[in-house]
Amino acid sequence: MTKQDVTTMIRAAKRESGKTWAEISAATGLSEVFVTSACLGMNSLLPDAAAKVVEFLGLPAEAATVLAEFPTKQFDKTVPTDPCIYRWYEITGVFGEAFKELVQEKFGDGIMSAIDFDMEIERVAHEKGDRVQVVMRGKFLPYKSW
Amino acid sequence: MTKQDVTTMIRAAKRESGKTWAEISAATGLSEVFVTSACLGMNSLLPDAAAKVVEFLGLPAEAATVLAEFPTKQFDKTVPTDPCIYRWYEITGVFGEAFKELVQEKFGDGIMSAIDFDMEIERVAHEKGDRVQVVMRGKFLPYKSW
Amino acid sequence: MTKQDVTTMIRAAKRESGKTWAEISAATGLSEVFVTSACLGMNSLLPDAAAKVVEFLGLPAEAATVLAEFPTKQFDKTVPTDPCIYRWYEITGVFGEAFKELVQEKFGDGIMSAIDFDMEIERVAHEKGDRVQVVMRGKFLPYKSW
Amino acid sequence: MTKQDVTTMIRAAKRESGKTWAEISAATGLSEVFVTSACLGMNSLLPDAAAKVVEFLGLPAEAATVLAEFPTKQFDKTVPTDPCIYRWYEITGVFGEAFKELVQEKFGDGIMSAIDFDMEIERVAHEKGDRVQVVMRGKFLPYKSW
Amino acid sequence: MTKQDVTTMIRAAKRESGKTWAEISAATGLSEVFVTSACLGMNSLLPDAAAKVVEFLGLPAEAATVLAEFPTKQFDKTVPTDPCIYRWYEITGVFGEAFKELVQEKFGDGIMSAIDFDMEIERVAHEKGDRVQVVMRGKFLPYKSW
Amino acid sequence: MTKQDVTTMIRAAKRESGKTWAEISAATGLSEVFVTSACLGMNSLLPDAAAKVVEFLGLPAEAATVLAEFPTKQFDKTVPTDPCIYRWYEITGVFGEAFKELVQEKFGDGIMSAIDFDMEIERVAHEKGDRVQVVMRGKFLPYKSW
Amino acid sequence: MTKQDVTTMIRAAKRESGKTWAEISAATGLSEVFVTSACLGMNSLLPDAAAKVVEFLGLPAEAATVLAEFPTKQFDKTVPTDPCIYRWYEITGVFGEAFKELVQEKFGDGIMSAIDFDMEIERVAHEKGDRVQVVMRGKFLPYKSW
Amino acid sequence: MTKQDVTTMIRAAKRESGKTWAEISAATGLSEVFVTSACLGMNSLLPDAAAKVVEFLGLPAEAATVLAEFPTKQFDKTVPTDPCIYRWYEITGVFGEAFKELVQEKFGDGIMSAIDFDMEIERVAHEKGDRVQVVMRGKFLPYKSW
Amino acid sequence: MTKQDVTTMIRAAKRESGKTWAEISAATGLSEVFVTSACLGMNSLLPDAAAKVVEFLGLPAEAATVLAEFPTKQFDKTVPTDPCIYRWYEITGVFGEAFKELVQEKFGDGIMSAIDFDMEIERVAHEKGDRVQVVMRGKFLPYKSW
Amino acid sequence: MTKQDVTTMIRAAKRESGKTWAEISAATGLSEVFVTSACLGMNSLLPDAAAKVVEFLGLPAEAATVLAEFPTKQFDKTVPTDPCIYRWYEITGVFGEAFKELVQEKFGDGIMSAIDFDMEIERVAHEKGDRVQVVMRGKFLPYKSW
Repeated sequence: MTKQDVTTMIRAAKRESGKTWAEISAATGLSEVFVTSACLGMNSLLPDAAAKVVEFLGLPAEAATVLAEFPTKQFDKTVPTDPCIYRWYEITGVFGEAFKELVQEKFGDGIMSAIDFDMEIERVAHEKGDRVQVVMRGKFLPYKSW
Repeated sequence: MTKQDVTTMIRAAKRESGKTWAEISAATGLSEVFVTSACLGMNSLLPDAAAKVVEFLGLPAEAATVLAEFPTKQFDKTVPTDPCIYRWYEITGVFGEAFKELVQEKFGDGIMSAIDFDMEIERVAHEKGDRVQVVMRGKFLPYKSW
Repeated sequence: MTKQDVTTMIRAAKRESGKTWAEISAATGLSEVFVTSACLGMNSLLPDAAAKVVEFLGLPAEAATVLAEFPTKQFDKTVPTDPCIYRWYEITGVFGEAFKELVQEKFGDGIMSAIDFDMEIERVAHEKGDRVQVVMRGKFLPYKSW
Repeated sequence: MTKQDVTTMIRAAKRESGKTWAEISAATGLSEVFVTSACLGMNSLLPDAAAKVVEFLGLPAEAATVLAEFPTKQFDKTVPTDPCIYRWYEITGVFGEAFKELVQEKFGDGIMSAIDFDMEIERVAHEKGDRVQVVMRGKFLPYKSW
Repeated sequence: MTKQDVTTMIRAAKRESGKTWAEISAATGLSEVFVTSACLGMNSLLPDAAAKVVEFLGLPAEAATVLAEFPTKQFDKTVPTDPCIYRWYEITGVFGEAFKELVQEKFGDGIMSAIDFDMEIERVAHEKGDRVQVVMRGKFLPYKSW
Repeated sequence: MTKQDVTTMIRAAKRESGKTWAEISAATGLSEVFVTSACLGMNSLLPDAAAKVVEFLGLPAEAATVLAEFPTKQFDKTVPTDPCIYRWYEITGVFGEAFKELVQEKFGDGIMSAIDFDMEIERVAHEKGDRVQVVMRGKFLPYKSW
Repeated sequence: MTKQDVTTMIRAAKRESGKTWAEISAATGLSEVFVTSACLGMNSLLPDAAAKVVEFLGLPAEAATVLAEFPTKQFDKTVPTDPCIYRWYEITGVFGEAFKELVQEKFGDGIMSAIDFDMEIERVAHEKGDRVQVVMRGKFLPYKSW
Repeated sequence: MTKQDVTTMIRAAKRESGKTWAEISAATGLSEVFVTSACLGMNSLLPDAAAKVVEFLGLPAEAATVLAEFPTKQFDKTVPTDPCIYRWYEITGVFGEAFKELVQEKFGDGIMSAIDFDMEIERVAHEKGDRVQVVMRGKFLPYKSW
Repeated sequence: MTKQDVTTMIRAAKRESGKTWAEISAATGLSEVFVTSACLGMNSLLPDAAAKVVEFLGLPAEAATVLAEFPTKQFDKTVPTDPCIYRWYEITGVFGEAFKELVQEKFGDGIMSAIDFDMEIERVAHEKGDRVQVVMRGKFLPYKSW
Repeated sequence: MTKQDVTTMIRAAKRESGKTWAEISAATGLSEVFVTSACLGMNSLLPDAAAKVVEFLGLPAEAATVLAEFPTKQFDKTVPTDPCIYRWYEITGVFGEAFKELVQEKFGDGIMSAIDFDMEIERVAHEKGDRVQVVMRGKFLPYKSW
């Protein structure tokens, strides 16, 4: 049983039960983004959280072991093709240098960690059409001389 | 005079005067991210804002015309190499599918716009090391049947 | 059952019954381009329309659920090889900059949406050989300062 | 003097004089899309039309010779990065197969020519925001047995 | 049954029966190049010709339906690796610009069609070693102003 | 002085004098395709022929030395973008395997040489529009056991 | 049964019997390099040699037919990753231009054939560690004017 | 003064003086392949040999310093386009796996070094056309357990 | 049974038994890095060591034969996507030239071997968070004149 | 004045003065690897260290400002071609997965930082030829649930 197998099981269980990512998040006490990414095979869950996902969705016990394994993160397309994901890639291209300028003006030479990192996604009401709001927070990691 | 020429002038003026992106932002009344991206040639400024940048940094008048022109957005590297920008690319790969799942669970089939879009970058104090906080907001654009 | 499975079923049903995309369009009340793209797995149908496709072609009920799911749009070839599709890619390359110049002259800095978008394809009689006519309409999305 | 030199001259003349592509189109009697693409170096003008462009914008006479030369069409980015052009590329990916299905259902095995081809771009008023309308017409070219 | 399945059947039938492409060409009255490309899945046969191929090689009747379907032309390698096919790619690179110069000197701005097109391959005796002779003929398609 | 410099000189001399590739061919006694490819820097001319080109076009003497040098053949685009050259690339993809099948049926395992090779391009009158005719002849090179 | 199937059979037979490429070479009277490359599916054997391989290794008779078929040479990685093969690729890059200079100084404008070609690989004793010796011989093919 | 500058000087000196790579080899006592690759900027010469090249060709003294510097080996094209160099790339693809099989059968698991390596290129007379002979020798480097 | 099959068996045996790479290393007397890489199919084990792995993990005997075979090293992604491996790729890019400068300052023109090579990975305690320590040692291989 | 300009100045000053990276390291009190990478434009120096480099090598004062600026790290070749750097890339491919297994066995799910990171390169005497020793140390960064 691979992480890909478990993702397929989770999608099937969601489709049949009508359960949502928000409910899986609530059942585990983890954030939506994190638990979703783990269910899609891009992060590992602690054994306890893995057990809760498996119980909540009625998956076989072995699935919890697999959810707790450390993944190898692979993304197939160098440039993503799905428009919803491509727009994020585009933001990287269009605003990447500005992001770097401002991070480094505020902190000095260094980067925002993508590991010690968290993210939230919310629906924000707006009169001209609701907006997707993404908040990302990553530890600043300074380059040091040595 | 091209947008690239103006970016070079702006960097030189910043280096000599010690002025910051935050100060340029304040001088124009625009957000830091937007004005920085425009100064780097990735967005156009309205004539009024362009004039303020030029005045604040002491650039030649033609630079305002160039800053107000509509850019062709080009990013050279399919996969960015600078670590500060690469981490964002990595986030796209690792969390892109989770982002899509959650946006579509909350809104239906569609995407977050990268055009009707804004972003802020802030330094957030944290006892284990300060964190970079990025907030992005984009209008949800639904796919429609026709 | 995946979207790819459903596309295979639809092709088989079309081959056996001789039904056309035009007839599927008529049966659903949706445009030919949209319903075809959804049957090929590139768009989602509303449940009602999905049910009509399934009924019209005599597919199993689960196929309607799958047609209504939100797809991940993937296109395999960075440069398409089929001549009928390549020509469109070529048009992007040859006329892309002119398109951008004219859109931005008529509307200001911004883009034509590919999401709030529709398209029609028609056969237009012509004495020197009939012509394919494509009409595309997309909402203009302006870049805004913030 | 190369086509690229002439494009630079045309852009400079437009910037100084405030003349538009629409006016260049009117001055030559050619469509906006065609004359713009020729001014950007992607098509050749007949000598007469080239002379009109040169006269209208006040360019040196040699520019007319260059505008009339047959170009080698080069586009630098396999996947375009500017959002206004990328969206067209995305349409190719998302709707390319549907386009092929419908062209071939209406005409038989063959393609839409990208050479015996014309295109118009217009602003269409719409209560929820004006729309870009693109009309493309290309001769159907059938594959033949031999 | 896909075009790839039919190609596999045709290769097996040829191997067992010892029948050649030349004989398949004779049985259908079509040229060798065209009928071979159709048997390899790169072109469609008219129903009548498809029936003749199927009869001549003793294939199941459904194969004729598949041979008559309109293919999606896919070639896997951007740069072909087989030496026999690579040499043609090399000719494109080495002589492509000269080809363009001469076509355009003889005809004006335009291209040789790859759709309204035919090709023959023959063995030509030569004292220093026989030669492969390829004759290609494609309609000249002029670029037009509009 | 490089081959690229000489090509630029040749283009300039042609533009000013109105001389054609056909006339350069006649002046040297070489075929149009070969002499054009050599003038574009893709083949070397024997010193005698190089001298004739230089004399016919009124180029400096050093240009003859350069035309006689052995070139390094470079083609920049893995997939050509100009439509006139792309169509040839497309033919390689669509008919490459059929070409291989027929060459090897007629000759055995081996290839058509791209070195011991010649090509002619002619305009062939046709009632439905004149056609470009290309004839290529290359020595068959058999693979041998050893 | 494909060439790939036969290669798998040959590897299995070698593993079980302990027979070497050197012994297969001796059994057929062909060189090691050639017979190995044919067993790996990159060259065709004459029917007689194919029969000897099949007999020597105890393969089914059909394998001889497959070994005698003309292969389509495919190599998957544009840049090879196995160090033993990569080093050869590196030699192409580092010494390719020097090779070209010397071949053309010794022979005139032309190339070394990779078709009318043979190669031997030997172990050469050396006090500081034995060396791999590769001897390649290919017919010089001159470019000719025409 | 860069290695590229020195290569340009060497080519110019060769062209004017008619001196050959063979003569440069003789003047330095180094092999043709090595000295040519160093003159093309792909290897470093010991100071003494560098001085001899400079003296033999009448180059400025600084050129000797540059020839003795350690190069960064760069090759621009992932797949070489010049036919003389491409054929070597093709040999890597076609015979690479056979080479690996035989090296490892004769020596065990390991590779042929491309660093402790030498190569010779010779013209070998042959009644059916002279042949290029390449002899390469590289130290066998075994993989070791640790 | 392929190397990939054996890797799958080893992962399964580890998961069920809870045995670690450190214990497999101890059971064979080989270093952790080497034995892990061999178990992942990237190196060959000597028959004795292969037998110990098989015994320690309770695998079928044939697995030892496979572990002792010489692998073809393949890595799928030109740019690795997993963050843990990507960081190493990034180090190559950021520090590669500095590495080359220092190796060549200390040793002369040449390289660090990746074949006659060993590596250790250790956990080093540190008050601000433990650190990964990697020690690599490779024989210096000098370029030689010849 | 760019970082590239300063690197050129540093190389020139080193060549003329014979000063080494080791001496630059000693003059600044920084490690060889770090100071070399900063001089090559891949890291920033603190103002004090930058001043010491400039003084030690006799560069203009502006060079210190440039050395202290935060670089954008760019590496041109996706796969490095210089053998000294390529070998490191190869190690990433061959040992990357083993590295990941062992880091994660010793620390849990996470990565070795390439930012909070240092490296040393030393010459280690060895009877069979001296060895390059590289020691890298990077902080372990755990993935956390959130």
